[in-house]
Order: sequence, then C-alpha cells, then structure tokens
Amino acid sequence: MYLDKIKNPNDVKKIPKENLENLAAEIREFLINKISITGGHLASNLGTVELTIALHLCMDFPEDKLIWDVGHQSYTHKLLTGRREGFETLRQFGGMSGFPKTKESDCDAFDTGHSSTSISAGLGMAVARTLQGKNNTVVSVIGDGSLTGGMAYEALNNAGKTEAPFIIVLNDNNMSISENVGGVSSYLNQIRTAKAYIELKDEVKNKLKNMPRGKNMIHGIQKAKSSFKQLVIPGMFFEEMGITYIGPVDGHNIPAMVRAFKEAKRCKEPVLVHVMTQKGKGYLPAERHPSRFHGTEPFAIETGLPAKKRTSPNYTDIFSTVMCKLGDRNESVVAVTAAMPDGTGLKRFRNMYPDRFFDVGIAEAHAVTFAAGLAASGLKPIVAVYSSFLQRAYDQILHDVCIQNLPVVFAIDRAGIVGSDGETHQGIFDLSYLSSIPNMTVMAPKNKWELSDMLKFAVNFNGPIALRYPRGLAYEGLYEFRAPVSYGKSEWIYQEKDICLMAVGGMVKIAEEVRDSLKEKGLSCSLINARFVKPIDEEAVREAMKNHSLIVTMEENVASGGFGEKVRDYADTLDNNVKLLTVAIPDAYVEHGNVDILRKELGIDAESITDKIIKEWKDE
Amino acid sequence: MYLDKIKNPNDVKKIPKENLENLAAEIREFLINKISITGGHLASNLGTVELTIALHLCMDFPEDKLIWDVGHQSYTHKLLTGRREGFETLRQFGGMSGFPKTKESDCDAFDTGHSSTSISAGLGMAVARTLQGKNNTVVSVIGDGSLTGGMAYEALNNAGKTEAPFIIVLNDNNMSISENVGGVSSYLNQIRTAKAYIELKDEVKNKLKNMPRGKNMIHGIQKAKSSFKQLVIPGMFFEEMGITYIGPVDGHNIPAMVRAFKEAKRCKEPVLVHVMTQKGKGYLPAERHPSRFHGTEPFAIETGLPAKKRTSPNYTDIFSTVMCKLGDRNESVVAVTAAMPDGTGLKRFRNMYPDRFFDVGIAEAHAVTFAAGLAASGLKPIVAVYSSFLQRAYDQILHDVCIQNLPVVFAIDRAGIVGSDGETHQGIFDLSYLSSIPNMTVMAPKNKWELSDMLKFAVNFNGPIALRYPRGLAYEGLYEFRAPVSYGKSEWIYQEKDICLMAVGGMVKIAEEVRDSLKEKGLSCSLINARFVKPIDEEAVREAMKNHSLIVTMEENVASGGFGEKVRDYADTLDNNVKLLTVAIPDAYVEHGNVDILRKELGIDAESITDKIIKEWKDE
Repeated sequence: MYLDKIKNPNDVKKIPKENLENLAAEIREFLINKISITGGHLASNLGTVELTIALHLCMDFPEDKLIWDVGHQSYTHKLLTGRREGFETLRQFGGMSGFPKTKESDCDAFDTGHSSTSISAGLGMAVARTLQGKNNTVVSVIGDGSLTGGMAYEALNNAGKTEAPFIIVLNDNNMSISENVGGVSSYLNQIRTAKAYIELKDEVKNKLKNMPRGKNMIHGIQKAKSSFKQLVIPGMFFEEMGITYIGPVDGHNIPAMVRAFKEAKRCKEPVLVHVMTQKGKGYLPAERHPSRFHGTEPFAIETGLPAKKRTSPNYTDIFSTVMCKLGDRNESVVAVTAAMPDGTGLKRFRNMYPDRFFDVGIAEAHAVTFAAGLAASGLKPIVAVYSSFLQRAYDQILHDVCIQNLPVVFAIDRAGIVGSDGETHQGIFDLSYLSSIPNMTVMAPKNKWELSDMLKFAVNFNGPIALRYPRGLAYEGLYEFRAPVSYGKSEWIYQEKDICLMAVGGMVKIAEEVRDSLKEKGLSCSLINARFVKPIDEEAVREAMKNHSLIVTMEENVASGGFGEKVRDYADTLDNNVKLLTVAIPDAYVEHGNVDILRKELGIDAESITDKIIKEWKDE
Repeated sequence: MYLDKIKNPNDVKKIPKENLENLAAEIREFLINKISITGGHLASNLGTVELTIALHLCMDFPEDKLIWDVGHQSYTHKLLTGRREGFETLRQFGGMSGFPKTKESDCDAFDTGHSSTSISAGLGMAVARTLQGKNNTVVSVIGDGSLTGGMAYEALNNAGKTEAPFIIVLNDNNMSISENVGGVSSYLNQIRTAKAYIELKDEVKNKLKNMPRGKNMIHGIQKAKSSFKQLVIPGMFFEEMGITYIGPVDGHNIPAMVRAFKEAKRCKEPVLVHVMTQKGKGYLPAERHPSRFHGTEPFAIETGLPAKKRTSPNYTDIFSTVMCKLGDRNESVVAVTAAMPDGTGLKRFRNMYPDRFFDVGIAEAHAVTFAAGLAASGLKPIVAVYSSFLQRAYDQILHDVCIQNLPVVFAIDRAGIVGSDGETHQGIFDLSYLSSIPNMTVMAPKNKWELSDMLKFAVNFNGPIALRYPRGLAYEGLYEFRAPVSYGKSEWIYQEKDICLMAVGGMVKIAEEVRDSLKEKGLSCSLINARFVKPIDEEAVREAMKNHSLIVTMEENVASGGFGEKVRDYADTLDNNVKLLTVAIPDAYVEHGNVDILRKELGIDAESITDKIIKEWKDE
C-alpha cells in the first residue's frame, strides 16, 4: 500500500514515479470506501486524484499556496497532507470538514465553499508574495463550471495585467454540478474537440512566417461569420485577457501534468493550465451519473444506490411538483436556476417546459437581474436558489428587482441549518438580508402543504416575494391547519394563554415539541405560525399581547435583522408588560455536522428552548 | 433650432438627415448650459449624443426597449423622449432623476444606477419578447468600464447561447469613471489600434478560401506567444462567447451607426455593436478632464471651474490624507478600489505608493476577495468603496473575509443619504447588512478627527472591520472630544439626565442640534457618540438606563437590522422602565434630492426628531 506511506505533507514525493498510478488507484478505492459510509462529495474528488498528485509533486507545503475553488474536490489534498484519519469523521460535528479550512491544516491556504472565488484569493496571495519579496508558488484550481461565475472573470481580467507569477489550473470536466451552460462552455468544448492543433503547430508557425504579408493578414482578419465560427485557437480567450495559456493537458496523466506545471512555474506572470478531467473517474456509477454523485448520501458500493431509501418527500420534491402544476396552469410562469436544476428540483419543470426554463450557470447575480428583465416584460419568473448562494445577489435583489417592485418570486431552498456542508453553506442570513430591502415580502412555510400554498400565493402576488424552506424532509404534521395564505397574516395553531410561541417556517415543528413539554409541566401555551417575516403580522402580535405574558419568537436565522427583532420593535411601540424572548442563531458561523446536533449546540432545539422559556417564566 | 421640434418620442425621425449634426450640436449646448447650473453627469452624456440619436432613428418608443447601463448617460435619451422641461429640476427633490426611471417615462425600459446590469436585464426582456411572440427590438447600451463587472460577463455568456434577437451596444470610451483596467481593456485597446483590418477584410477572406488547407490551418493554430500576442481579430473575444460582433464603428458618426444598428437588427441572435465614443466630446474642459466632469457640481462654462469653491474638506479628503500617512508608516498597508481612485480619495495613495495600490475595475466582488487573499498573506488591505456599491460584495464579505476572520478594512464612503443620485445610490443599508455578519466590527465617526482615529484603529485591528462615513463636508465640531478609540466603546459627549441621545456617525451633529432644542425647552439631555454599531456598547446602554427614562437611538440607515434594533434587543434583556425611541430611515427607497430636504421628508432632521422626542416625552 503506497497510501500507507503518506503520513505528512510532501510525502508523496517519496513514492517512485512508476508507482504513482497505483497510488492514485489506492486513493480512489479509499475515497469510494469512506464516502460510501459517511457520504460526501464523490464525483469531483474521483476526477481530481491525479491532478492533486501532480500538483503536490510540483509544490512544497505549507510554503506554497493551493486554493481550491468551491473546495469540495479537496479530499485527495487532505489525504496527501496527513489527514487520512479525518475521513472517519468527515463532515460530522467536530470532525473533518468536507471543504478546505485554514484552521484544519496549514496546507489549506484559503477557505472556500462558494464558487468562483479562488482566482481572486489566489491573485491576492500572489501579489502579496511578490510585494513581500518571497518566491513561493501560488496555485488556484478552478472548474469549468465555476468559470461561468462573474467573479472568476473579474479576477482573470485583473490577473491579465498583473506581473506576479501565479498559476491558474482550469479543471475542465465539462460539467460542474449540472451541465455547463453558455458561450464560454461551448468555447471550451471547441478546444476539447479541436484535434488537429498539436501536430500542426510548427507547420502553421512556419507557414505564417513565410507567407507574404502573413502578419498583416492576421491583423486583418475581420468578422466573417461563416468561416470563423469554426476558428478555434486554444486558449485565445484567455490570451486575449492577457493570460498565458498552456494546454489542454490530460488530467489523468500525471507526467504530462507535471511537465505542464513545471512549464507554468517558469513563467513570470499569470498562466492558465487547462487540464481535462473526468468526473467520477474510476467508479462506474459516478462516471455515469456524476450529478447524483456530486454530493451523495451513504451508498452501496456495488450498486451505487443509496444505503437508506428515502420514503417521504423533502421540500425540494414538493417545490418540484408544484412548479410543474403551475407551469401547466400559467404560461407566464418561467423558472430560473443558477446551475442547480437537480438541487433545486427544477429538472422536471425543465423537461416539461424547456422553453420556459433557464439555467444561467453559476451566476446568481445575473440570474436575479435576468429574472427582473423577464418580470418587467410581464412574465412571472421563479428564481430557485439555495439560501447561502442568494447572498451573492443581494444587490441585484435590492437594486434591480425591488426598486422597481418587480414581481420576481424567490424560492429559497436550504434555508436555515443545512448540516454537513458547514459554515459556507448554512442558510441562516436570508431573513435578515431580505427583510432589510424595501418592497420585499418574505414568507416561510410550516409544512409541505403550506409550501405549495405559498408558492401559488407568490405566483399570484404582484411584487417581489420570497419563500424560504429548509433542507431535508418536508414536515407532514399539522396538515389540518390549512387556512388560505393571506398577505401579512399569520396563523394561530393553538390559542391558549400565558406563553405564546411565534415560530417561523421549520421552527413551527420544533415549537410543537416545545409546547408539548411546556404543557407536560402544566404551563399554558399558544402557538402562532408566523408565515410572514416581512411584513410581520402586527395584529397577531397585539392579539398575543392581550392574553400572554411571555412571547417567544423562534427562527432558524441569525438574530441581527431577523424576525425576533421586528416583533420586538413593534411590541415596544405598544404599552404593555409582556416579556419577549428571541430564539435565533447566535452571532457566529455554524460549522458542519448533523442538523439535530447543531441545533442543540446553538440552543435552538426543543429541549434548549423549553429550558430557556421555563427560566424566563420563573424569572417573571 | 432643431431641438425645439422635438417634443415627443420618435420626433427625432422627422429631422432631415443633413441636419442631425446640427441637432447634436444643439443638444450638447443644451446639456452644457443646464448641467452648469444644476450639476449632474456631463462627460458621459456629451459622449453619447450621436449614439443616442442613431439609436432613436432605428428604434420605436415605447414599443422597443432601450436599457442604459449605469444610466447616467441617458440625458439625451430623456431629451428625445419629451423630457426637456425636466432639466430645470434635474436631480432635485421631486424633479427629474439623473437616471432612467420607468415611473418617469414609458420610454425608460428599466431602472439602472449600478454598473453591469444592463445585459442581464436586456437579455431577460429579449427572451420574454420572443416567448410572447412579439417582435420589438431590445437594446442594452453598456460602457467598456461596465464590462469589467462580472455580471456583464455572466450575461454575455448566457446571451451567447440564446437565440433571441438582442442588440448589445458597447459604448467604448476607453475610460469609465476612472481609467480602465485589466486584460479586457487592453484587448479592446488592441482592437482600437488595429488599423489594417477593414481594407484587408475581403482580401483575407479570399486568400484563406484559396489557400490549400487554409481551413485546417486556422483550426491548427496553437499557442505561440511570440507571434500571436499581436494577433488581433476584432471581436473574437465576443465571438468566442457565441456573440456576433459588428464594429468598431465611430460613435460620433450618425450614418455609420445607423448602418450598423440596421445590420444588427437583421440578425436573429444576440449581436454586439462596438461603438467608439469620446467622453466629454465637444466641451474642451470635459474632454481634457473627463473624470472631473463625470459627475460635476455647478460650474462656470468658460473656465470649467466649479461655481462654488469648496473651502473645507469633505470626509473623502480626510480619508485620502490619512491613507497617505498610514502608507508611509506601515509597509503592510495596501489599498484596493473598484474603479474609484478619485471618488474614494485613493488617488494620492496611488501616486505615492503605486505598488501597493490596486484598482480592480468595476468589480466589487473580486475587490473584496482579492483583499481577503492579501490579508491572508499578512498584508493590511483597505478596501475603499461607496456604501451602495459594497452591497454587491455582501457574500464576499460574509464568505471570504469574515469566516476566516481576515483583517480587511472596509472604508465605506457615501454612507447614509447621498442626495441627488437617488434611490440606487443611497448608502442606507450598510449598517444592516454588515451587522448581520459574524466576526465583523462596524464603526462610524462623528467628525473628521474621529475618521482619522478610527482608520488608524482599523489598520491596527486584527479582524474584519468597517468604518462608514457620509458624503460631503467633514464635520469639524466637537473637536475637543477625542478620547482614544477603544474596541466596542462609545463616547459620552454630554452627561445629564432624563433623555439620552445615542447617535451614530453623522447623526451626532444632528443630535447636537436636537439637544440644543430640547435644552431650550427646559429638558435635560445627554448625548452619546455610539462610535461602534457592532458590537454595541452594552455598558453605555446600562449606564444610560440608570439616569434616563428615554433613550433615543439615531442612525442614517434603515431600521431593519440597524443600530436601534441592537440597542433595543439588549435593553430588553435588562429590567427597566426606560422607553426607547428608534430614529432611522423608514422601510422605503429614498429618492433623489437635496440631503437636508430628504432628511426632513424622512423625519430624521433635527426638527422632526425633536418633535418626536417631545411627543414621546409627554406620553410618558
């Protein structure tokens, strides 16, 4: 076992060259075994085994800096930097993160999680290194999917004028989370399929040199669509931005990549090495279904099927189904996703209404303003997006949608604690950043039927509106409470006295448990399903203040700018002696781990909340 | 006067072709005259007179849709769509906006203000138009500066795969607000200077056709740096993204542009028309100093000099001076701007420390993550940016800076009400969006000395930290209060009893006026300069609650997620009977106009606040 020999950073260099392929095979086996048990990102990691080995052969850790865009493909890097044991606790609370973490290892140069950040961060490091008179190597590895993000382009544009040595590795697997989209993607595809160039390289150079007016001729080529649409000069797109291009290189051929990286290191300026890899490489089910094995639950290695079969639908499934119905009923309904047709559940809508479905790539900012354009023309766009990714379009919501009060629907999945992806992916800020925006309406459903009702309400609403719902199984309780959704109105679930719980979305389920515990202890307790976070239901707050002496707001969002603050603001305008208790996520990032464990740690599980309420009640 | 003949949309078509140049001259004179009185955006508007005329000759309003990126260059469009009278009240409260506004005219297709949004919005409209079976024309006009924004690239990338007819006009003036930066800029510059292509166009086409293996040869061109660095095929950058390219065209030649736009309209797919214009065209001072005449105060036409000479410094000047001092004292200090070296005051720092100054183009997202990379390498980056533009980097602050607790300093200019630029530019959300982010510290100085002290404090602080200061003259009062800045500590200015004002930043000055009025009415009133908005000074709140029965928080920010909510949250945890009054901006966009008038409208001027306090006090 060669993998056994790798205990510390740079140990890989001691493996004889002829055995590196065996090492790669062992790493693949290790990853498949471990991830089949813990779950995690598989396809992307299987695709980058040789790439990571080749990079490690050309770099010295921790002096050299390696930044992984998105970062879920850094498992082999973790293995090669002495973190083999970590895979036992991968993505578990207190265990190893599934993403690069500077606090986990000094071989992780920069924390990543969201897409398209690595070139910006790497360029900063390269520039700083040169300013400081050091000479370590800085490498950013970015996938072709991440290249659809505008930030990557902003960074490439800046790299193009920088003189600091800096290596960008384009890990081109022709597929990010879902299929790739857009002009740049077709451009890369042209490079991939342009076979003739290598052999012809020298011949061409000579011919051009010897041709009369050859140089002028090239200068003089003007648009001439018919012939030039097929014109492909590998890397000209990057060269035109001022970045030296090397490639394409086979991303599963270690010696070829080592040669390319060494050539890149000799450059005294930013250089892009174009490496072609296959997602899921070496594990047939993942090669065939890279999207399903992007982030996977535990699975059976033989079949590739999930270890546990899901029996009830999650919120994404419900959204998916209702979208198809709405698409059928209303021709104005169009759907927009930023490279997440699978994750957001829009795939079925795409299959049914391909003309009314838009996957814009990993480009949340564009997605929102594009939707604003659709809405300004009388269509009804639904932007389906994860909560933490929508953060990237805060200004577009504020500036392009809400100033003009355009009827864009934001279907925000993965809102609240998401679990094992950790800090970068928790959807715990949306209630705050959305509530601060004028003209915005914000809702959260308590169960699967309410998600359906709210989505229908949103599609008929004439203004910007968001509904946020959590990752995971859709709650099927409280099905008997299905009063029509009415603007700004909450829903009384239980009306008693003394204590009143006002819960937002997924917290309604937890509020039920809290209420049961309080009842067991002989306390009287009401429960309001808030439904609307913006505007809050002032009438319900007034009503609650009549018969209760403690109001408890409950939300899976940070306290700052959240639901609790709004209720408190309003309650304070009324003359009363009612106490308010805000249950929310404390002002700190939430790491990875099981959602129930995290809730307990944060004090927002039923037991902790019950304890807090009893303490508050006794203090009265 | 041809301009007199233009009273309604499409009237320009009635002007005989041979007189269009005269019309352009009249428009220039009109704009110079009006803007010299009202102030406004001059250079960009003088540059686009012929472009706008040519577009109007090829379009029908309001059926056709014209989207102006950023939008400050839309004055001629306003003139040609019957808004001549509006220039009397340009940018004044209740008057005509300096930006496109759908509520102002149905010839304004989409509200803009921030950069790089127009292609996204236009593409949405083009796609919607085609889906709806209509056939109107959609045109987005974007400057070369805006093209450095990632969103523009995301949109281009999507346009490249869209089949809907859509015209993008690249208004290339080789200068956005400041000089242009980056690889794409040099690329465009290459096109500009490539003279040979037009004459050679046909010759080249024929030669290629007749050359043996000509087609293959082109297929086969591989990277060959030495020869291909000079290879410029106009528009290949766009062609490679799948967008048909037409140009470059002289942007002051109306017939040439009309021909190009007509050709573009014949295309059944997205097409980019590259138009070259000169900023400030026709007015010598603006041609020479386009940056100074970007947004100008009233000026004397003969000299181009400001009508009123500023005698005391504004906050930007103070920042500029202190940055130079800090740069001298500390070699780690580096500065980052997103295309605003003038506006943010970093120009002097750039001149003194060119190696430590980075203008990244209109690319706020990249700016912030680039700064994170610099900080991760031990440097001390100061990102100087306007409040409303930093909204575009919310996720980068949250995800790339604050998770890793990196010591990036955010120097946030134009925070609070900015006045005549209006809705899109008000800096009234930063306290909210920054406060929601864990690990972030947020400060606001009361006067010019405190800006200096806070900037020095920030540079020595080991974590993410922001200081926000308003547009306009730096307050020079309260100079005797200059206790050292201490983390999380506020400053008592006057310590009395009964009423306690807790004011943030620029509101301290207003709080002084409020206090004077209250004192005149015989009331006792304390004043605390909050200094820190995150964390709030809990000790000061406790102290204030001892001797006062009314605490008034004052901030120039929306209430949701702001300073007042934080103070209220904390105050409510204490046993007390103290009343709290939050003075903040109501939940609505703030239009353009004089800052004092706007404050009055919003109820955050001294008089309104005094009235509120007296009412609250009497209600006690």
